[in-house]
Amino acid sequence: MTYSIVILGASGYTGAELIRLISEHPSMEIRALGAYSKAGKTLNSVFPHLRHLDLPDMVKFDEIDWSGIDLCFCALPHKTSQEVIRDLPKSLKIVDLSADFRLRDPEAYAAWYGNPHGAVEMQGEAVYGLSEFYREEIKTARLVAGTGCNAATGQFVLRPLIAAGVIDLDEIILDLKCAVSGAGRALKENLLHAELSEGYHAYAVGSTHRHLGEFDQEFSALAGREVKIQFTPHLVPVNRGILATTYVKGDAQVIYDTMVAAYVDEPFIEVLPMGETPSTRHIRGSNFCHIGVVADRIEGRTIVIAALDNLTKGSSGQALQNANLMLGIQETTGLMMAPLFP
Amino acid sequence: MTYSIVILGASGYTGAELIRLISEHPSMEIRALGAYSKAGKTLNSVFPHLRHLDLPDMVKFDEIDWSGIDLCFCALPHKTSQEVIRDLPKSLKIVDLSADFRLRDPEAYAAWYGNPHGAVEMQGEAVYGLSEFYREEIKTARLVAGTGCNAATGQFVLRPLIAAGVIDLDEIILDLKCAVSGAGRALKENLLHAELSEGYHAYAVGSTHRHLGEFDQEFSALAGREVKIQFTPHLVPVNRGILATTYVKGDAQVIYDTMVAAYVDEPFIEVLPMGETPSTRHIRGSNFCHIGVVADRIEGRTIVIAALDNLTKGSSGQALQNANLMLGIQETTGLMMAPLFP
Amino acid sequence: MTYSIVILGASGYTGAELIRLISEHPSMEIRALGAYSKAGKTLNSVFPHLRHLDLPDMVKFDEIDWSGIDLCFCALPHKTSQEVIRDLPKSLKIVDLSADFRLRDPEAYAAWYGNPHGAVEMQGEAVYGLSEFYREEIKTARLVAGTGCNAATGQFVLRPLIAAGVIDLDEIILDLKCAVSGAGRALKENLLHAELSEGYHAYAVGSTHRHLGEFDQEFSALAGREVKIQFTPHLVPVNRGILATTYVKGDAQVIYDTMVAAYVDEPFIEVLPMGETPSTRHIRGSNFCHIGVVADRIEGRTIVIAALDNLTKGSSGQALQNANLMLGIQETTGLMMAPLFP
Amino acid sequence: MTYSIVILGASGYTGAELIRLISEHPSMEIRALGAYSKAGKTLNSVFPHLRHLDLPDMVKFDEIDWSGIDLCFCALPHKTSQEVIRDLPKSLKIVDLSADFRLRDPEAYAAWYGNPHGAVEMQGEAVYGLSEFYREEIKTARLVAGTGCNAATGQFVLRPLIAAGVIDLDEIILDLKCAVSGAGRALKENLLHAELSEGYHAYAVGSTHRHLGEFDQEFSALAGREVKIQFTPHLVPVNRGILATTYVKGDAQVIYDTMVAAYVDEPFIEVLPMGETPSTRHIRGSNFCHIGVVADRIEGRTIVIAALDNLTKGSSGQALQNANLMLGIQETTGLMMAPLFP
Repeated sequence: MTYSIVILGASGYTGAELIRLISEHPSMEIRALGAYSKAGKTLNSVFPHLRHLDLPDMVKFDEIDWSGIDLCFCALPHKTSQEVIRDLPKSLKIVDLSADFRLRDPEAYAAWYGNPHGAVEMQGEAVYGLSEFYREEIKTARLVAGTGCNAATGQFVLRPLIAAGVIDLDEIILDLKCAVSGAGRALKENLLHAELSEGYHAYAVGSTHRHLGEFDQEFSALAGREVKIQFTPHLVPVNRGILATTYVKGDAQVIYDTMVAAYVDEPFIEVLPMGETPSTRHIRGSNFCHIGVVADRIEGRTIVIAALDNLTKGSSGQALQNANLMLGIQETTGLMMAPLFP
Repeated sequence: MTYSIVILGASGYTGAELIRLISEHPSMEIRALGAYSKAGKTLNSVFPHLRHLDLPDMVKFDEIDWSGIDLCFCALPHKTSQEVIRDLPKSLKIVDLSADFRLRDPEAYAAWYGNPHGAVEMQGEAVYGLSEFYREEIKTARLVAGTGCNAATGQFVLRPLIAAGVIDLDEIILDLKCAVSGAGRALKENLLHAELSEGYHAYAVGSTHRHLGEFDQEFSALAGREVKIQFTPHLVPVNRGILATTYVKGDAQVIYDTMVAAYVDEPFIEVLPMGETPSTRHIRGSNFCHIGVVADRIEGRTIVIAALDNLTKGSSGQALQNANLMLGIQETTGLMMAPLFP
Repeated sequence: MTYSIVILGASGYTGAELIRLISEHPSMEIRALGAYSKAGKTLNSVFPHLRHLDLPDMVKFDEIDWSGIDLCFCALPHKTSQEVIRDLPKSLKIVDLSADFRLRDPEAYAAWYGNPHGAVEMQGEAVYGLSEFYREEIKTARLVAGTGCNAATGQFVLRPLIAAGVIDLDEIILDLKCAVSGAGRALKENLLHAELSEGYHAYAVGSTHRHLGEFDQEFSALAGREVKIQFTPHLVPVNRGILATTYVKGDAQVIYDTMVAAYVDEPFIEVLPMGETPSTRHIRGSNFCHIGVVADRIEGRTIVIAALDNLTKGSSGQALQNANLMLGIQETTGLMMAPLFP
Repeated sequence: MTYSIVILGASGYTGAELIRLISEHPSMEIRALGAYSKAGKTLNSVFPHLRHLDLPDMVKFDEIDWSGIDLCFCALPHKTSQEVIRDLPKSLKIVDLSADFRLRDPEAYAAWYGNPHGAVEMQGEAVYGLSEFYREEIKTARLVAGTGCNAATGQFVLRPLIAAGVIDLDEIILDLKCAVSGAGRALKENLLHAELSEGYHAYAVGSTHRHLGEFDQEFSALAGREVKIQFTPHLVPVNRGILATTYVKGDAQVIYDTMVAAYVDEPFIEVLPMGETPSTRHIRGSNFCHIGVVADRIEGRTIVIAALDNLTKGSSGQALQNANLMLGIQETTGLMMAPLFP
């Protein structure tokens, strides 16, 4: 069986990544590509690397014929996304890649994003899209909210440890390094090549990054008490990748065993042998997440490091994994390609 | 049906690229990975990005059991390759990625490579592996010699034009820009990151690059007279890609029509609309080659530019395309993945 | 003696480079920094790398007190520049870094830039700012027009050869590779890091780049007849540098001797030993230009390659060199710093 | 007065950086360049970017005439350095850039470096070369031991805070990101461009990096008790720069005031306004160190971030600063150049 797919926001990087992945998926077919400013353009002109595909031109959202469409990916900016999704046919399955339905609490949403939510009634319905931990809910969901790419990486490290109660919940530091494509295709001076290349820096320092809203929500729910972590992202002049260096207090061997147990059956999460650590270059372009655990020289302190591709496992690959679950397709379909190295 | 495959020289970049591609090929299975200095190592330790695959450790060549093997890829250094291939079972189909069997004339080989050929008798048997132009011979060949990556790029531009007689054969200039992975994984000071990044330069200036041996052989055969081109490669601090800017004398429209006609049925060669030109970023990680044709402001002069990925279409992708032909598999199998961008 | 300097357009890359260079110049002092959209900002906030300098905030042009100012650098966009310069005090010496006064012929200007010139009367007065070739005129000029960075590179190769009559004037091909900072700090999608890095391409193919106006003007004047070259620029994902690979017809030894003779007394132009070729990494951040000459394997064909830093020797370093000449300062003052490698 | 200088180990990156800096120093002259494997080569062939300088060829150490030499920079590998320095004339002032004389305790040296020290008697004599904190001792020292580049960065953050007693000494985490040139010019597979570019990773995880020996020694001495920090370095595919993200427990405002007070008179250390953070791109190629302080959302936790250029302030610039002090030259001489951006 072939499912009919629409992508809204097809002209950004997560849109392009969705098209790349779906173009090789054996049971999905893209029927429409929606865009704002690039509506009316051919896919060739927006993404010349996809010119070999026989796909329709970008169109405005109201030009899309939704009859017969099974699932829609929304790769729109936050705030726009909630307004668009509110008005989509109720029969449609939706995977949203924006931040709009990640937070279940309207007040938390307003606090982190600076505006009241425009579709509060759907916030409750949405399932948080971290496939490995919400798998059953996702299978029956109508609306799945893709996680933040940084938020996904941090949770792959910390969820098993918080759930197992093997680390000090008040002493978690997440020092994260992310690649440039995570900032999207928007025109900003600080994203120009001449500005970014050959340098790197921290941003949102002091634990002010919006993905903390997701950490707070998820970790507190897991622990049954408030959990607040420290989180400092850094921007590295590389196209793809997130590396999350996590400092925790807890026994390294116990932590290692907990991680192995958590992920032993997961096809995309690889826990490296004890003492080994991952590199973003070894997961580029793939849906894999590599995790390493190392004991610090100070007794009782452990470093856990995770690496994934922000556009794939951190965003569009995760979205496709969730769509597979929602449509009853084998979860790994179209997602087992090897990383691109070098 | 599933064919049994061996890769010799699996620890280099073209070896890794072969494994990446074959890991998703529906009718090939890798049975052994041969290596020299890295024999005895796990695939994980040599290429951590391939750790999700369930493949055997690297072994020495004489440890390989050849029974039941259908085809062997040889991704060895030149000179080594001829010595190894000479002693392989005669029943085996072989795709060689080295330079050893590209030149049919032993004297030309000795002149360009500086040593007499060690398997002269096999030079005559080998078929030149430019799939689009030697397709029928490749289908029945036992030994196929993969082309140089620069040589492939230049020939995609120039073969149709020379064959059609639409350009001046004495006035061809090929200014080529290639990526770093083309130089392989050898330890050389000038390949260190700190040496290469943030700079670029020409090398083998004065038309002294060995791939000229292939151009001379192929273009002269096509034209029925000696053809010598000027060829200057440049090294650009990027991992993958070749861009061949070709200056010819001939009518741009005639040249464009010739190119379109030559490639209209080719699944991997895309001739862009007249006046558009390609970028390496739009073919990265794929088996596609994009070609653009532009008229110069000077009447009768035309620029033709081709872009491909040196490791894929320029080497391992081409090798797999040829293996498909040799084994009677659909030519495009395992090779239609989209490029990785960004 | 200390000269008082103003920089207009201080918030772009050539502005920043001027400030960097002048900050170490022993006899110049910056009195005002003019900007458009960034007027009102501190230098720190616009260019944090210059925060150690004790310099005034950016101001609007009409806030500048011109009394006592000796020389003004205009690092403005073209078209804006002519309008601003037209109204500056006539007593002021001016070095313009834009394209506005490079072409002496109003019709040529209109043809290449698409609009009539707004200060035609000053076009005749302006001296073309290629220091090594217009040194005497520059010394007494009031208005010097800095050259295009590509145009400078091509002329360092070709002017001596055309002047000496040692190459075929109808067979000149300039294949040029330039770095990203040459495109400036403007917000364009194709200049984003995620778009540019890890790929490269040709642009303005077919000899349509505006710097051809300079080549046509200068080479034709030198030759005493119309000279039209072929010129293809390429964009390489590196911050600084231009590499000009030039294909000419002429005897390599004669060409080499001509180059050596032309530049033997020039402090910034280094002709490498015969057969050696330059790299952009070896001139980064400096005012040097390295030139190499190599004979092609085809008799009578020669490749000449030049490398310089587009922001220094190609633009702001050249501008300072000219300002030194105009103010009667030793020409090399503040410009002999070594390149930055790695 | 002009001092006569020798550089041993001139063929590595810190050697090149020393030559770059000294080439513009008004009162130093390089008399000899010593090298091992590259002895006999011209400076041009080893470092083409320095070809404009009129400097002697590289020579073996025993070919150097030490008469009249005032100061020697040793930019040799560790272990080699101690053997060479032991035999140098005792009248010579020496700035060592290796790790050999950084640790005062022979046992600590043996523990971190894996071999007994070969010049124990000189370990006691050597002054630790962190100019801002050992200034008076350096002025009268004969042998100064340059610090590790990572060690320098961490100390610029932590020394004032430890000395002032404003942070919890048992809860210090240093997450550091360093550039590729810090690994030197040695031939290692993991330093190849194709391996490194477009990816990043942690190394020496678990607080096993040798620079911890320096932190332990210096911080414990300052605090008057044992201080052990956690330290995780990461390798980022950029040529120059170190960014040290430091997590401490202490009041942000107190910490900020302490930093400002510590560095208010230091010409090279810039404490940014409260809440602002530095970027490596803004100190590239310079001797400046930028430091930022930010309060975390969790009360009582503070993030302090420092950025410097590993080859300049982290190594060769520091060495020159120390040489200035040792020779009685103004400390900032030859070191006030602006960073190179972009």
